[in-house]
Amino acid sequence: MAAITPERLSLNTATTRAQWKLDQAIEGCARHGFGGIAPWRDQLQALGPEKAARQIREAGLAVSGLCRGGWFTAEGALTQNVLDDNRRAVDEAVTIGAECLVMVVGGLAPGSRDLESARAMIEEGLAKTLDYARTVDMKIAIEPLHPMYAADRAAVNTMRQALDICDRLGDGIGVAADVYHIWWDPEVRDQIARAGKKRLMAFHLCDWLVPTTDMLNDRGMMGDGVIDIAGLRGAVEAEGFSGLNEVEIFSQENWWKRDPDEVMRVIIERAGSVC
Amino acid sequence: MAAITPERLSLNTATTRAQWKLDQAIEGCARHGFGGIAPWRDQLQALGPEKAARQIREAGLAVSGLCRGGWFTAEGALTQNVLDDNRRAVDEAVTIGAECLVMVVGGLAPGSRDLESARAMIEEGLAKTLDYARTVDMKIAIEPLHPMYAADRAAVNTMRQALDICDRLGDGIGVAADVYHIWWDPEVRDQIARAGKKRLMAFHLCDWLVPTTDMLNDRGMMGDGVIDIAGLRGAVEAEGFSGLNEVEIFSQENWWKRDPDEVMRVIIERAGSVC
Repeated sequence: MAAITPERLSLNTATTRAQWKLDQAIEGCARHGFGGIAPWRDQLQALGPEKAARQIREAGLAVSGLCRGGWFTAEGALTQNVLDDNRRAVDEAVTIGAECLVMVVGGLAPGSRDLESARAMIEEGLAKTLDYARTVDMKIAIEPLHPMYAADRAAVNTMRQALDICDRLGDGIGVAADVYHIWWDPEVRDQIARAGKKRLMAFHLCDWLVPTTDMLNDRGMMGDGVIDIAGLRGAVEAEGFSGLNEVEIFSQENWWKRDPDEVMRVIIERAGSVC
Repeated sequence: MAAITPERLSLNTATTRAQWKLDQAIEGCARHGFGGIAPWRDQLQALGPEKAARQIREAGLAVSGLCRGGWFTAEGALTQNVLDDNRRAVDEAVTIGAECLVMVVGGLAPGSRDLESARAMIEEGLAKTLDYARTVDMKIAIEPLHPMYAADRAAVNTMRQALDICDRLGDGIGVAADVYHIWWDPEVRDQIARAGKKRLMAFHLCDWLVPTTDMLNDRGMMGDGVIDIAGLRGAVEAEGFSGLNEVEIFSQENWWKRDPDEVMRVIIERAGSVC
């Protein structure tokens, strides 16, 4: 398996969100020779999707995904408001030429303990968003989140569960496989194989630190934790995945406090040596 | 489904570990009318297993489990030292008349990223411990831990995975189903049904708080979080599980700081109203 070179990397802008606005991240990606970028919607909206699209194009960057649609359970029912917002997310993904719209689907409805109904609401929301996305040729990528986020961020928590949804919904929907969320799963290799090239729409990198001191914002740089990242990359590439390796690190106490150019250099070094 | 009355409760002594030694916990359980207790080995050894057994018997308490054997990966290989310690744990479980020996199996070997080999080591350790446990009629209960503990505490992380191991190893081994670890799992009800009465050896209660501020020691009192505890109890009882409802709450900043008699009263109240 070939080492990851910079042009095979994409920067998920969450990695430098404390330091760089989107235009700076675009410049940073170009300066460090990254092949792509994956913006978050708040930053995209702050810059303006059209303007961002132009800058990304001029910088020669691909867009490995737009983060994120979803949160179907946020209002306790699948409201028109939530569906409209997802439709806008699809449109923004089209505007910037994203490979896919990444879905963080939402957790339990506010005040609820009913996971089954949350999951039904999520699937209905995905189906409706997919209906629209197909008309504009945008792919929908469900990101199964680690089970520790089942209550408050995403009630789709394994590759198996996400792929079961994909099987029910048909073409145009797949998964964003983030090593942080899936590395622990005894079935992860079988489910990557099940997904295959068609359903593998994004591949996200970071690492699981021991100890992890914050459930949301203490993700590690590749190589600083315990995930067999190379093994998982081998598994997705064995299925024919040829997208960029998107680096997404939430790190309140470490990487968000560093010089972002240093962060980019460390990403390149680690991607080439431990991934 | 009948409400849980105090005689259907067992106190896992972790719940009051900051306040009570084992002899005090035994007295507390008797005073509050609990049906049973589940000691941890450090406390058991401090009191002495024979003495503890006598006090538990005199207090009229059942022993819903001994916490815990396992940690097969702790020394990087399945050493005789680790196997001997598990054999001693089996003997202690027999001495106190425990329903089962609960297994926290261990995470990655120190310095390793190889989950598969950790899982193989764990299964071999379980098999060897089970061989001995069968000769003294002690049941072995694998406790699948939440995936957030895969690296550092237990690399058996779902009911499916635990039951696959049980199927390979045969009679005398089953699962300890703790709502904290399994509530998020889309397959939890199917896997409880698959386990059936024979493999369901313990049922542990607490709650998942939102937010959870510490990955180990911020578990909630039943009713303070988002787990559908009654639903899960209904599922295990539908399979014929008739063991005690064991309450195990690690709570550094809340319940470990309270008067333990207050903790016991709140457990009884919540068990009767929300479980």
